[in-house]
Amino acid sequence: MSTFGLRAERAAALAQQRELDLLLVSNLVNVRYLGGFRGTNGLCLIGLDRRTFITDFRYVERARSEVPDYDIVRGKQDLLESVVDVLKESSRPLRLGFDDADLTVKAHRRLTELLPPETELVAASGLVEELRAVKEDGELASIRQAAELTDHLYRWLTEEFGLAGRTEAEVARALERRAEDSGADAAFPAIVAAAENGALPHASSRDVPIERDTLVVVDFGCRIDDYNSDCTRTFSTGSLDSEATEIYEIVRSAQEAAVDAVRAGAAGKAVDAVARAPIERAGRGDQFGHGTGHGVGLEVHEAPRLAPTAEGSLAPGNVVTVEPGVYVPGRFGVRIEDLVAVGADGCERLTSLSRELVTV
Amino acid sequence: MSTFGLRAERAAALAQQRELDLLLVSNLVNVRYLGGFRGTNGLCLIGLDRRTFITDFRYVERARSEVPDYDIVRGKQDLLESVVDVLKESSRPLRLGFDDADLTVKAHRRLTELLPPETELVAASGLVEELRAVKEDGELASIRQAAELTDHLYRWLTEEFGLAGRTEAEVARALERRAEDSGADAAFPAIVAAAENGALPHASSRDVPIERDTLVVVDFGCRIDDYNSDCTRTFSTGSLDSEATEIYEIVRSAQEAAVDAVRAGAAGKAVDAVARAPIERAGRGDQFGHGTGHGVGLEVHEAPRLAPTAEGSLAPGNVVTVEPGVYVPGRFGVRIEDLVAVGADGCERLTSLSRELVTV
Repeated sequence: MSTFGLRAERAAALAQQRELDLLLVSNLVNVRYLGGFRGTNGLCLIGLDRRTFITDFRYVERARSEVPDYDIVRGKQDLLESVVDVLKESSRPLRLGFDDADLTVKAHRRLTELLPPETELVAASGLVEELRAVKEDGELASIRQAAELTDHLYRWLTEEFGLAGRTEAEVARALERRAEDSGADAAFPAIVAAAENGALPHASSRDVPIERDTLVVVDFGCRIDDYNSDCTRTFSTGSLDSEATEIYEIVRSAQEAAVDAVRAGAAGKAVDAVARAPIERAGRGDQFGHGTGHGVGLEVHEAPRLAPTAEGSLAPGNVVTVEPGVYVPGRFGVRIEDLVAVGADGCERLTSLSRELVTV
Repeated sequence: MSTFGLRAERAAALAQQRELDLLLVSNLVNVRYLGGFRGTNGLCLIGLDRRTFITDFRYVERARSEVPDYDIVRGKQDLLESVVDVLKESSRPLRLGFDDADLTVKAHRRLTELLPPETELVAASGLVEELRAVKEDGELASIRQAAELTDHLYRWLTEEFGLAGRTEAEVARALERRAEDSGADAAFPAIVAAAENGALPHASSRDVPIERDTLVVVDFGCRIDDYNSDCTRTFSTGSLDSEATEIYEIVRSAQEAAVDAVRAGAAGKAVDAVARAPIERAGRGDQFGHGTGHGVGLEVHEAPRLAPTAEGSLAPGNVVTVEPGVYVPGRFGVRIEDLVAVGADGCERLTSLSRELVTV
C-alpha cells in the first residue's frame, strides 16, 4: 500500500472513533495529503471499506496516476451530486463526517438537499489536520530539504547579492527566482521590508531602495515536493541607534528561549508565554501582536499553533516555527524565525543560520 | 468619493433591494473590490449608512491608506467577534446578508452563536459578483493592458523564444518571468502542454522537451493592478497529420462563430451552443468537456459563464473568454481562447493574435 493508502487508513480509523461511517474530504490540501491529488477540484470519500476519489472531466485522466489507492469516479459538474450517487449504494442510514471549516454554507445546504433524510451530516473539521500535524519521515525529509535550501539562499543573499541600494521588490524577486532555479518554488511571496515598512508584520515588498543604517526584515521560505519551509531574519545595513539594537537583542533572546522550550508535551500557550515574557518585561508587549509560531507542512500555516489562545500540546513529529517579533510603528520591526522539528526531549532546529545581528 | 465608495454605494443599494439592512462581505476578492484592501484577512460591513472595515493587528496600519472610504476597526483575533461588537450599536433587529458561497459552516455557526437571536442571517451570495461582472472603464483599461501584454509575450514566444527542443516547464517559466520583468504578474501558472499532455485540459507543464511535428497548447495570462487576462493558443511545431489539422480547423471555426455570437442580451448558454454545435457535428462533442467561457476580472474565473448550464444573459461591460477545445486522449488537444469585452452590438476582442494555425 502507498503512503496515501496508509494515511487514508489512519483517517478512517479516526473517523470510526468519532462514530462516523464515512468521511467526506473537501479541503484540497487534505485531499492532496490523503490521496496524492494535486489538481484543483476533487473530493475523497473515506471509510473502513471505502476509498473513493471524485473529480471532474479535466482531472480524471491525471487522477488515475496521481491517486493510486482510490476508486476514481468521473464526477458530474457538481461533484456533490456524485457524492450522493456513490452513497446511494449504501442501504443503511449513514453518519457522514464533513469538514465544517472548509465546506461553505451553500455547499452544505446543497448536500443536505441531495442526501436522503436519514443521512446525518456531522461536523468533523480538524480530523485530517490532526494527522497532518505529525510528520512522517518522508515529509520531514522534504521540509528539511526546503529549509536547507532556504538557509542557502539567505547566505547567498547576505554574502553575494546584498541589500542596501537594491529595492525591496528586487530582493524579494531575486530570492524567489533563485529558489525556482534551484528546482524548488517560493513557499510564499518573499517579504523584504526595510525601516518603517518592517513595522508591518505582513508588509508587501516595495519598489523602494533599501537605505543604509536601518533594519530589514526578510521573511522567506521554499517549497519542495509540496512541503514548505519558513524563515525570517532581520538584518542591519549599517549602524543602528540604541533602540534598534536593544530591541534586536530582546527579540533574539526571546526567540532562543522559546526554541529551548519546544519539546513534546509542552503546551502551545506555554511556549508562547516563554517568548512573550521577556518582550513584555521590556515594555514592548503591545508591539508583539501575533502568535509565537505555527505548524508548517503542506501549508505554510497549519496545526499546531504556539499562541496565547492555543489549545493542546506539542507532539513528536510536529514541525513549527518560532518567530516572536517587535514592531515599532513608523520606525522598524524585528522578527527572528526558525523552523524546528519537535522531539521527545527538545527540538531540532531545521534552520542553521546564526541568530546574531548580521550587517549586510 | 473614491471608486470604492461608489461601489460600496451600489452594493448597499442592491442589498436594500433584497431587504437586507447590512451586508457582511467576507470573500477577500469582494473585499478588494468594494474596499480596496489587498491583505489576507479583512471583512466589510456595508449598509446605506455604514462602511466599516475590520481587519487584524497585522493589517490595520495598511488599511488606513488602502481602504479610504471606510471606518477602520482593529478586530479581535476572531474577526467575527468584532462584527458582533459593531452590530451591537444597533438597537433594532437586523437582517444581515452574508456570502453563503464563501462563509464556512463553522464560521456561520460561530456567527449564529455570537449574534443576538433577533438578528436574521440571510444568504446573499452572488450580490457582489453581480456588480463585479460589469466592468467600469478603469477596470476595462487594466484588463486591456493585461491582454496587450499577453499578446506581446505570445509574439515574443513564437518569434524569438521558440518551442521545439525546450521543455514545457522552461517555456512556462520564461513566459511568467517575462511578465514579471514587464512589471506585471502571471495571472496563473502558465500551461504549456505538448502532444498527449495537451489532451489534459488543465495539464501541468512537464520537464519534458517539446517534440517537433506536434501540437502545443499554451494557456497564459497576465495580471496588472490585480486585473487578469487569459489567452490560449495552440501551436504546431512542424508538420501535422490530417486529424490534427482537421480538429484545429473545427475548433477555430467554432471559436470564431462563438466570438461573433457574443453581444449584450445573448444568453450564456446560447453562446456556448454556437461553439458546441460544429464540434458536435464533427462527432467530437464528447471531447469538449468544459464550458465555452467565463468572466475575467479580479479573478481569472468569475461571472458570467458561457456553458450549457449557464443562466442569464450577457450585459455591456462583461468581459469573458471564448475558448472551445477538443481533447483527443493520448494524442493531443486543441484550444483557442480569446478575451472579449461585451458591447451593445457585439464584442471587442481584447486579444489581437491571429487564430490561424501558427507553426513555431
